Amino acid sequence: MINVTLKGGVVKQYEAGVSVADIAKDLGMGLYKAACAAKIDGQVTDLRTLVTQDAQVEILTFEDEDGKKAFWHTASHILAQAVLHLYPNAKYAIGPAIDNGFYYDFDVEKPFTAEDLQAIEKEMAKIVKSGIEISRFELDPVQAKELMKEQPYKLELIEKHSGAGEKISFYKQGDFTDLCAGPHLMSTAPVKAVKLTSSTGAYWHGDSNLPMLCRVYGTAYPKASELEAYLAAVEEAKKRDHNIIGRQLKYFCNSDVVGQGLPLLMPKGAKLFQILNRYIQDKEEYEYGYLMTRTPLMAKSDLYKISGHWGHYKEGMFVLGDEEKDKEVFALRPMTCPFQYQVYMNDMHSYRDLPLRYGETSTLFRNEASGEMHGLIRVRQFTISEGHLILRPDQLEEEFRQCVKLLQEVMTDIGLIDDLSYRLSKWDPNDQEKYIGTPEMWDEAEGLMRNILDHIGLEYKEAVGEAAFYGPKLDVQIKNVHGKEDTLITVQIDLMLARQFEMTYIDKDGEKKYPYIIHRTSLGCYERTMALLLEKFAGALPMWLSPEQIRVLPIDDGQLDFAKQVMAKLRSAGLRVELDDRREKIGYKIREAQVEKIPYMLIIGDKELESGSVAVRSRKAGDLGAVSVDEFLQKALEEVRTKAK
Amino acid sequence: MINVTLKGGVVKQYEAGVSVADIAKDLGMGLYKAACAAKIDGQVTDLRTLVTQDAQVEILTFEDEDGKKAFWHTASHILAQAVLHLYPNAKYAIGPAIDNGFYYDFDVEKPFTAEDLQAIEKEMAKIVKSGIEISRFELDPVQAKELMKEQPYKLELIEKHSGAGEKISFYKQGDFTDLCAGPHLMSTAPVKAVKLTSSTGAYWHGDSNLPMLCRVYGTAYPKASELEAYLAAVEEAKKRDHNIIGRQLKYFCNSDVVGQGLPLLMPKGAKLFQILNRYIQDKEEYEYGYLMTRTPLMAKSDLYKISGHWGHYKEGMFVLGDEEKDKEVFALRPMTCPFQYQVYMNDMHSYRDLPLRYGETSTLFRNEASGEMHGLIRVRQFTISEGHLILRPDQLEEEFRQCVKLLQEVMTDIGLIDDLSYRLSKWDPNDQEKYIGTPEMWDEAEGLMRNILDHIGLEYKEAVGEAAFYGPKLDVQIKNVHGKEDTLITVQIDLMLARQFEMTYIDKDGEKKYPYIIHRTSLGCYERTMALLLEKFAGALPMWLSPEQIRVLPIDDGQLDFAKQVMAKLRSAGLRVELDDRREKIGYKIREAQVEKIPYMLIIGDKELESGSVAVRSRKAGDLGAVSVDEFLQKALEEVRTKAK
Repeated sequence: MINVTLKGGVVKQYEAGVSVADIAKDLGMGLYKAACAAKIDGQVTDLRTLVTQDAQVEILTFEDEDGKKAFWHTASHILAQAVLHLYPNAKYAIGPAIDNGFYYDFDVEKPFTAEDLQAIEKEMAKIVKSGIEISRFELDPVQAKELMKEQPYKLELIEKHSGAGEKISFYKQGDFTDLCAGPHLMSTAPVKAVKLTSSTGAYWHGDSNLPMLCRVYGTAYPKASELEAYLAAVEEAKKRDHNIIGRQLKYFCNSDVVGQGLPLLMPKGAKLFQILNRYIQDKEEYEYGYLMTRTPLMAKSDLYKISGHWGHYKEGMFVLGDEEKDKEVFALRPMTCPFQYQVYMNDMHSYRDLPLRYGETSTLFRNEASGEMHGLIRVRQFTISEGHLILRPDQLEEEFRQCVKLLQEVMTDIGLIDDLSYRLSKWDPNDQEKYIGTPEMWDEAEGLMRNILDHIGLEYKEAVGEAAFYGPKLDVQIKNVHGKEDTLITVQIDLMLARQFEMTYIDKDGEKKYPYIIHRTSLGCYERTMALLLEKFAGALPMWLSPEQIRVLPIDDGQLDFAKQVMAKLRSAGLRVELDDRREKIGYKIREAQVEKIPYMLIIGDKELESGSVAVRSRKAGDLGAVSVDEFLQKALEEVRTKAK
Repeated sequence: MINVTLKGGVVKQYEAGVSVADIAKDLGMGLYKAACAAKIDGQVTDLRTLVTQDAQVEILTFEDEDGKKAFWHTASHILAQAVLHLYPNAKYAIGPAIDNGFYYDFDVEKPFTAEDLQAIEKEMAKIVKSGIEISRFELDPVQAKELMKEQPYKLELIEKHSGAGEKISFYKQGDFTDLCAGPHLMSTAPVKAVKLTSSTGAYWHGDSNLPMLCRVYGTAYPKASELEAYLAAVEEAKKRDHNIIGRQLKYFCNSDVVGQGLPLLMPKGAKLFQILNRYIQDKEEYEYGYLMTRTPLMAKSDLYKISGHWGHYKEGMFVLGDEEKDKEVFALRPMTCPFQYQVYMNDMHSYRDLPLRYGETSTLFRNEASGEMHGLIRVRQFTISEGHLILRPDQLEEEFRQCVKLLQEVMTDIGLIDDLSYRLSKWDPNDQEKYIGTPEMWDEAEGLMRNILDHIGLEYKEAVGEAAFYGPKLDVQIKNVHGKEDTLITVQIDLMLARQFEMTYIDKDGEKKYPYIIHRTSLGCYERTMALLLEKFAGALPMWLSPEQIRVLPIDDGQLDFAKQVMAKLRSAGLRVELDDRREKIGYKIREAQVEKIPYMLIIGDKELESGSVAVRSRKAGDLGAVSVDEFLQKALEEVRTKAK
């Protein structure tokens, strides 16, 4: 008999050699039916695995990440089985579970059409309905090759994975057998609801010199209702995806000849950038006492050698020139810190001068791989509201608090405050060469930050190995419309770089000391924030952020002069107003303004002309009736002033 | 007898073989005495040159650029002669005329001190007083080497310049002979007023692997009063030089580890940038109907290959990567045009959409040689108010006029309008490979521009070979405090690039047509404009442009609360106000504010506290007496509103 510790700590006894499936059955038929895979002592494994000694066992269902993976992996085998039924000459390559589903790559005579995919889905449904049992077996490499002799891609994989004396594992379901490490479900039956979402070309091993295969993407759920809910959410996310609506609404575009990851902000996007930028600059300068700088976008390698970027960050930088050949090698900056330190170091400073808070609207460059680019979120060039606070140690907590207060005010104003979570990003003591400084300095810096966060009462999780190379970070995290989490803002404590640069101040006692430094952003990366705003509001930005706030729509030329007067009056009050004076039907003009998500349309016909009023239409609430120009102006200004969402 | 055509077209007859000097004498002894050199058929030459056939002859005096050059070149020979009198072992290298004077490089045992220079000046004065005749002679290379056998630098030059059968020319004045192409004065006598201004180390041929020579700089004038006026102007220019006061007043700094030509704008400089930038953006958007874009700072080489920059401008660009090795090669942009075209090309356009006026606050990069850097004026990275107008041909003249009107308004507002001159920069038909397009297209574009300029009634000169590679330019020229002329703003007509990019619009007749394009700036390069403003106003910028407009100076802590109230009131009205609350004597605080050129100091003592007033001190006019806070506020706002100089 062995002791099996279950989730929650309950210990039960079983005969040695009991299968995980049997344990699940023993715990209840509901769990057994839902079970997809298991964890034995933390290792993900098959339900058919036998437990031979004392162990912790956790049954994984579709609700668990790894349970889902097993479910989708089985779905990919069902896909391959169906394809082989319909296309017996197809060669099958690989078929993993991925985020939100699975794919399988096939070598077929011609790419699958949408109709082909429907037929394959039908065949998959038959296989599911038959509830074919899935079994696992192992062969030595020679036998494995014999079994797969018709399948060139499998032969290549066997060749690659067959170490000396190692067995190769296979999964079999009826007439279909696949080389696979598992885990898999016990049968095809639970894969009730399947949807093949698309097919595309994909090179074998991602290498354009190798054959182009046909990749079929799909997803699967235990219930049809769950699949439907998922597909509906995907549709909704697509509608809000900034990469789609940002282009439709003409906030940005890309150009093949400019390059990937280098979006062009079109007039609306540039306007949104300007609105956010002026707001942040003014807030930082006038409310938080920042001094703005404007430092170069490139520097000699000498600068980055002192800061440590050359040793710890060079792979991510665009380098101009060749150290072997050129007298001077430059690099585009990935961060602003060393530049603002040069401004600080241009003068002597006393303890009385501190804190000094430097801010900059700073464009940065990161040499990311082409494949990783995405709209405004993964880019090679971006601009952030960067800043560095040079402090005495006794000023650290208060200044850190002010940084958090500032970023929270900004996020409240732009409407993202409810979507944030916080993370304390620490170094990885097991990978010390990624960082500068000693373990003692890291302990000190992380301790300082944890203390301050606890004093502020911020709820946060901790993450190892996510620090900057020079210090720990408070990362402000946010999820995009597809559920992918990114860092929007950071506040970092740096006890290291002042030493690297020999940056000092003269303390009260007349001694030169190294200041503490906070690296921080307030709005973060403009491009990313703009993307998240477009997604959050599905393109209908709050009035104060809308590039075009109001559109004046005269019904015909008779009201044109009055329409121009209205526009001039609103503009002189600082509102962003355009006039649609085209000779189009008013319904057409309204529809267009609505599609463009203009907050207010002011329709002017003869009635309005006579009474000096405007018929107000809101993109949200529709027709609001006629009011005087002054009344509308006051309400509009109030909506801007309060930054209403 | 030959016919000599003089300046102004008068023709006189002389015997063939008459010297230019004799012609000058014939025209009047005044001219003869002032004569420094001459032009025969446009070629600069010696006064001793003989005229042997019909020719155009112009006598050059110190008032002419080339006359000055001959004068200064002779002064450099006098310098060398004086050095050899005092240091017989000195080896002399080269000694040209340069802007504003001359230099000579010597190989001497130890560098000259200030005292040495004084002694050399005295010796020069003797040589001038002796009025030594200067003569020219020629030798073949073998004889030349024999003559200069003690002078290694001269031997090297003879070696380099002695082609087959060529004669080497020399100039001799008393005991001094120099290898020289001339031209020179007839005697040392006219070089009445000499000043040796500095000495410095300079490598032979500028190559740090070759010997370091001692370079002596000087200048010379025909009259002592002219020399004094020049030296006084240099002193005044130094006081105004942005490269000096811009650093003193902490507008910018440089850093060795960042690199040359990459100035860092400190808080005051960044503030001035922001003031100018917001002013320009708002003016362009709201008064002139521009659409702002924000496009990437780099692109793949593909973009520049289409635009022609790769073929015609690559030497001036920073390239990232290596075409031989890398899949994608990027380059930092030297201009914004191809990027804004991509924005245009993202949509289809009809003739009704035009004109489209795109504007951008655009940072650009030019790969200039290290030696050419100067403060904020010659830099590797700079930012301009760039814009491109996409037009139908019928819109060209009106839009061009508007561009000129805009730039003139801007220059009036910032106070540089009176310092401008205009230049029509044309292509060079003798160097066609520098340009794209056909001669016919250049004729058309230049003709269009000349027509418009004449219609506007702008006074301009024309310059061959100064066009952009894609079209002619109206260059707005300005001189810096040292008299050096630079281009501040350009307005260009481009009939070529729309074709390169296949940029089109659909015309009234349904046909695709290529638009005309105007490339233009309104304020030009921010860095350069900032430099010129600092020089023009000797650092005392007009109120509306001053980073800090007002400083509040309480006499002691007793008035601190009131001083803070005054600051808050002025700030909330939009003025840029700081408080000097240090416990320093009021006289000290005032002197500091005066040195920092703060437009207004508001001094607050007990008397002001009681009466709720402020004692106003202007940096220009000194003490203005006490007024109420409201009265001062109204006057200050008015000064800002009117952009008073």
